[in-house]
Amino acid sequence: MSNQLFDSIVLGDRLALAKAITLVESENPNHQNEADELVSLALKLNKSSLRIGITGAPGVGKSTFINTLGTWLIKEKHKKVCVLAIDPSSQKNHGSILGDKTRMETLSMLETAYIRPSPAKGTLGGVARKTRESILLCEAAGYDTIIVETLGVGQSEYLADSLVDCLLLLLLPNAGDDLQAIKRGIMELADLIILTKADITEPARLNQAISDVANALQFIPNKFEGHKPSVCKSSINPNETVPAIWADIENFIVFQQSNGNFNSKRIVQKTEWIKEAVKEKLTTDFFNDPNIKKAIDVSLSEWLTGKNSLNALVDAIISKRKI
Amino acid sequence: MSNQLFDSIVLGDRLALAKAITLVESENPNHQNEADELVSLALKLNKSSLRIGITGAPGVGKSTFINTLGTWLIKEKHKKVCVLAIDPSSQKNHGSILGDKTRMETLSMLETAYIRPSPAKGTLGGVARKTRESILLCEAAGYDTIIVETLGVGQSEYLADSLVDCLLLLLLPNAGDDLQAIKRGIMELADLIILTKADITEPARLNQAISDVANALQFIPNKFEGHKPSVCKSSINPNETVPAIWADIENFIVFQQSNGNFNSKRIVQKTEWIKEAVKEKLTTDFFNDPNIKKAIDVSLSEWLTGKNSLNALVDAIISKRKI
Repeated sequence: MSNQLFDSIVLGDRLALAKAITLVESENPNHQNEADELVSLALKLNKSSLRIGITGAPGVGKSTFINTLGTWLIKEKHKKVCVLAIDPSSQKNHGSILGDKTRMETLSMLETAYIRPSPAKGTLGGVARKTRESILLCEAAGYDTIIVETLGVGQSEYLADSLVDCLLLLLLPNAGDDLQAIKRGIMELADLIILTKADITEPARLNQAISDVANALQFIPNKFEGHKPSVCKSSINPNETVPAIWADIENFIVFQQSNGNFNSKRIVQKTEWIKEAVKEKLTTDFFNDPNIKKAIDVSLSEWLTGKNSLNALVDAIISKRKI
Repeated sequence: MSNQLFDSIVLGDRLALAKAITLVESENPNHQNEADELVSLALKLNKSSLRIGITGAPGVGKSTFINTLGTWLIKEKHKKVCVLAIDPSSQKNHGSILGDKTRMETLSMLETAYIRPSPAKGTLGGVARKTRESILLCEAAGYDTIIVETLGVGQSEYLADSLVDCLLLLLLPNAGDDLQAIKRGIMELADLIILTKADITEPARLNQAISDVANALQFIPNKFEGHKPSVCKSSINPNETVPAIWADIENFIVFQQSNGNFNSKRIVQKTEWIKEAVKEKLTTDFFNDPNIKKAIDVSLSEWLTGKNSLNALVDAIISKRKI
């Protein structure tokens, strides 16, 4: 099949890429068919790339770090860098203002960088699917390094990890109690840990934080057998800290490729993608069925009066499905 | 039906309550049937209560605030207070250490307080269901004020709002850029906003923060018609700040009761509960079907070679469902 928009994307037309991602994010069924075709073509093209996730609590300096890393990769390593942001925090309105280009000033001015704000609306599964599709389109457009920025503390790191090859966790060297408490859950997912704001942290405190994190890692099960995340620091001056971070990322990727994890993780991610798409269609069709809508209304009143238990109601509702 | 465990719960036996919540959180099918019966009984009992959600970024002082508010409610208002914590951040292992009693020292020592850590494992929908069921059991045990603590920035506030009558958003008076950026999404959901650490914040800064938040609220659509969240401050000394906060909560609840929102929100929450339970059963049964497992494997290879688009594969997989 021939597709003019896709051809323009492959030729590096940034407007075409932006238009394609907008189709992917659209909820209009006609757009979804167009998007589906573009994604199939991108999948067939099968461009190689490195997908890096960046996660960390608000205020840790994710945008600054991405700006520094992305600019360095373009200037020193001649990469083509694309930044996609996931922000599942504004579900009610299209209120997301993350992934804002003004927050990555240097990077956004480089011609080989592409920055795209978040498809904020929708379920986690929906956001994941849209981001996966956007990643493929960016790769088709020739971007070889995809950075996925995730905001927050919560399920979004699991989401980010399901989209990338390598997940970087950013931590403040002076994190308080509350951060310590949640760190474990997130540290289990990290492939590399970076302590930010090294330039404005007292050296003794920074070293203490590095050894604290390294100690904590001893008590956390390995995410991949034979690999403990290294603990790096980052500062505003890229030449001071980025080469070591990049070397660690490259070492990790070589390790993952040599033991087969790199490919098997990507296969698992594609399987999850299919399953999420199936789940979405299955449940949407189910709840749109007028019989089901009626059954839920009836059940609610039966349940409130204690006539039936929840499990019995669930079975009764599902039995009302028209094939 | 008669149920000894339930009778003990109603008599105020804390061990029985703990056991029941453990049944609710269990993934063992036998436990699920027992839990289902307990929840039905609790639902029928239909005890009145106030359910308050507390949300805010890490480090904002949620535990301190809950400790202060809960202790004050017990001592001054003779309430029976229960604290449940939601922490969806550790999905991979049972790594949650939130809701820890040691973080709410004064409160945890009071006999009319019950503190329960989070059912960390599972999907957001699963955590929501378990928390809803725990709330009902705590109400059956006579707790009239249920506080649900949510960690983080992400989808967890939506989850919290779907469980409670009134959602309190805690903010630091010196929140940085990153927090400003995400605040809008969360502020849309708040029924009351509280600036923490008033005792250790410079008064001019605190007043500036209060007026900043109040200004920002002008640009945010009302969650409930005719209601703008008030902006309060909290400090370590309960008598200084808690009475004003509690008066605002009570005013809001009276407002919600008088316009019918209180009941209609609870009905919506119960409908969501049923729908989530149906969705869980529907998708679990579907993906456990051996035909579906095979169809997904076949699809994956067809998809990777570009033989079929994602939408076509989804339809093909769903068509393999028995019945």
